[in-house]
Amino acid sequence: MRNLLLCVLLLVLAACASRPPTATATGLQLRGTGDLGLVVERASGSLQLLDTSRRSAIGRVHGLGDLSHASLVYSRDGAHAYVFGRDGALSKVHLPTMTLVARVQQSGNSIGGAISQDGRWVVAQNYQPGGIKVFDTQDLTLVADIPAEYAPGKLSRVVGLADLPGQRFIFSLFDADEIWLADLSQPRAPQIRKFKGVGHQPYDALITPDGRHYIAGLFGEDGLAKIDLWAAEPRVERILAGYGRGAQPLPVFKMPHLRGWAIAGRLAYLPAIGRHEVLVVDTQSWAEVARIPVAGQPVFVMAQPDGRQVWVNFAVPDYDTVQVIDTQSQRVVHAFKPGKAVLHLEFTPRGEAVWISARDSDLISVVDTRSFATLATLTAQSPSGIFFTSRANRMGL
Amino acid sequence: MRNLLLCVLLLVLAACASRPPTATATGLQLRGTGDLGLVVERASGSLQLLDTSRRSAIGRVHGLGDLSHASLVYSRDGAHAYVFGRDGALSKVHLPTMTLVARVQQSGNSIGGAISQDGRWVVAQNYQPGGIKVFDTQDLTLVADIPAEYAPGKLSRVVGLADLPGQRFIFSLFDADEIWLADLSQPRAPQIRKFKGVGHQPYDALITPDGRHYIAGLFGEDGLAKIDLWAAEPRVERILAGYGRGAQPLPVFKMPHLRGWAIAGRLAYLPAIGRHEVLVVDTQSWAEVARIPVAGQPVFVMAQPDGRQVWVNFAVPDYDTVQVIDTQSQRVVHAFKPGKAVLHLEFTPRGEAVWISARDSDLISVVDTRSFATLATLTAQSPSGIFFTSRANRMGL
Repeated sequence: MRNLLLCVLLLVLAACASRPPTATATGLQLRGTGDLGLVVERASGSLQLLDTSRRSAIGRVHGLGDLSHASLVYSRDGAHAYVFGRDGALSKVHLPTMTLVARVQQSGNSIGGAISQDGRWVVAQNYQPGGIKVFDTQDLTLVADIPAEYAPGKLSRVVGLADLPGQRFIFSLFDADEIWLADLSQPRAPQIRKFKGVGHQPYDALITPDGRHYIAGLFGEDGLAKIDLWAAEPRVERILAGYGRGAQPLPVFKMPHLRGWAIAGRLAYLPAIGRHEVLVVDTQSWAEVARIPVAGQPVFVMAQPDGRQVWVNFAVPDYDTVQVIDTQSQRVVHAFKPGKAVLHLEFTPRGEAVWISARDSDLISVVDTRSFATLATLTAQSPSGIFFTSRANRMGL
Repeated sequence: MRNLLLCVLLLVLAACASRPPTATATGLQLRGTGDLGLVVERASGSLQLLDTSRRSAIGRVHGLGDLSHASLVYSRDGAHAYVFGRDGALSKVHLPTMTLVARVQQSGNSIGGAISQDGRWVVAQNYQPGGIKVFDTQDLTLVADIPAEYAPGKLSRVVGLADLPGQRFIFSLFDADEIWLADLSQPRAPQIRKFKGVGHQPYDALITPDGRHYIAGLFGEDGLAKIDLWAAEPRVERILAGYGRGAQPLPVFKMPHLRGWAIAGRLAYLPAIGRHEVLVVDTQSWAEVARIPVAGQPVFVMAQPDGRQVWVNFAVPDYDTVQVIDTQSQRVVHAFKPGKAVLHLEFTPRGEAVWISARDSDLISVVDTRSFATLATLTAQSPSGIFFTSRANRMGL
């Protein structure tokens, strides 16, 4: 009888011990999410969860499909990421448990997205079929479908989508030379304002950190198209003639990301197209005020959170190099080679370190922004974009 | 026997069921911390945990002592708050479980603190005994004690403490007319740089959002003391003669908080002392460029995250009023009365809403920054300072 009793006890205790897996397994149960991040592993269609305090990787989330050129945004609380795959899938990932909680095939070809100011709507920008789609961040149900129909039956590829204050989004129509401003305060009845003839083939765009200026690069001609969204009557202005792709005499190995623009104080630093230069632009006059020679064709030009330094990576053949520009002297003060095919840089929110992905070295380097010392290295499978949860607090990302 | 067996089963199951309380109770177990906040309830010595997504209160943490004029900072991950009580106690609070996990009586009278850029050190600024103390954020063990000894045996009250990049902190000595810059990269051997004769009685200070300029208000004379920390040889300059307390002809019902300075674009908006005006200052020349008439003596002058509007509260007798200034027209565009004794305002990180504490109405109002509609009201016990976890991502707070 004793043995039977003992046996029962053990059985019950065993039953008690086996609980459904919780975040305890990841050690995240009672930790905050403010110092977490994700790096896109394009080869394996996975995301690696990063801890910027311990400078380590916590684990992986698999099954995200084609993650080439993938990007993501975060929920207000930093617990969920919304991942936009090139294959047109939108995935919702829960960081504390490292699980894929929802996934919808929302288009044939997607090139990123954004999240509304209040975190209720996530928006995907699509090439095929051209347009944007609005989803509920809770369950990824479709809330609004806005085809970029610029002529009967003709849909344009959409680029340069950015969120704006007040449940608004702005995006560019590559095939229509238009910029659309969508007000989703009533998402089932979106209000669309169209800016036409903005310039030939807008290929990417950015919003200034204050959400005031929307600037689209033009593939088909020189210059950029800019809209002051704070103006009583917003209209399109052309700025920086000569910046554009059109009259570009040099071969371009990789088009720069306009989101790579760095705005530090009243000056903006942006990658010249084709040239081995970083352009310096006055954000009051939007005129070019200087050019800084660099090691190659710049791709990302990123300002440290304090704006004191600007970090630059490059297109082939110089894509193993990173250079650092001091914004006071406007000179390159440091250069180094963190690995092969440096694709992205992400600063910790208060700027003490920068995380750099080197795709062909399967490496992430964590570099001290003052001493330039390498604080840590992590292995990752063909890492590309690095995204920290602090992005949840910022506009236009 | 059967009964005995059943009895044992029930006992064991009961034992299994009773686990130590976890965050499950608060519903926070698997949620992020990026949209949480705390409001100081000074009357009851408690903190109320806020959810800025649901616009609701989650619960309370008790036992924090004298919280009049209390402030707090957050750990990098947003899970812990470090609370500086006026009674000289430093408390560590864990948000997901709403528990007080550590508390040290570190001085007789404390007036706030800061956290290092990497989140390893939390620093308290003290009136009694005058100086700063550095604690390990893990367990609140004392790492460094830096008395503000400006003459043999004479300790000054410390004010205007701010964190700077690179494990540095800057603070002002009210009784010594000095500003000290402490480098804590070796916290057991701190390096102190002293600026002397900065002006009479620095009473509070602020750091610009980029961490470049440290500006101290002077109680004993006109003007402010400014240090450009990016200069090759930082030195003290006097700016805004006439701003200071010294030659102030009007009675001052409450000294403005300099941290209430709003910097929007290249302009700074700051409370005039005694006058019913908000001063507008060009941050390139540091000269006054405009004065905006307001409803009373301004206390906090806070810029929305996008810098498009500046919100102002007031000293008695106008402390039931809040006014909103449009930074484009530099005119007051809205005024309202969210309750009695409006003490503080805090914007959600992307600026869609502002949370306002009205101490004598035991009320917190959540106001839409575009429509000015009241989105929610929460009850709190004599609420004062409101602090969102997004502060963990910012310098100089």
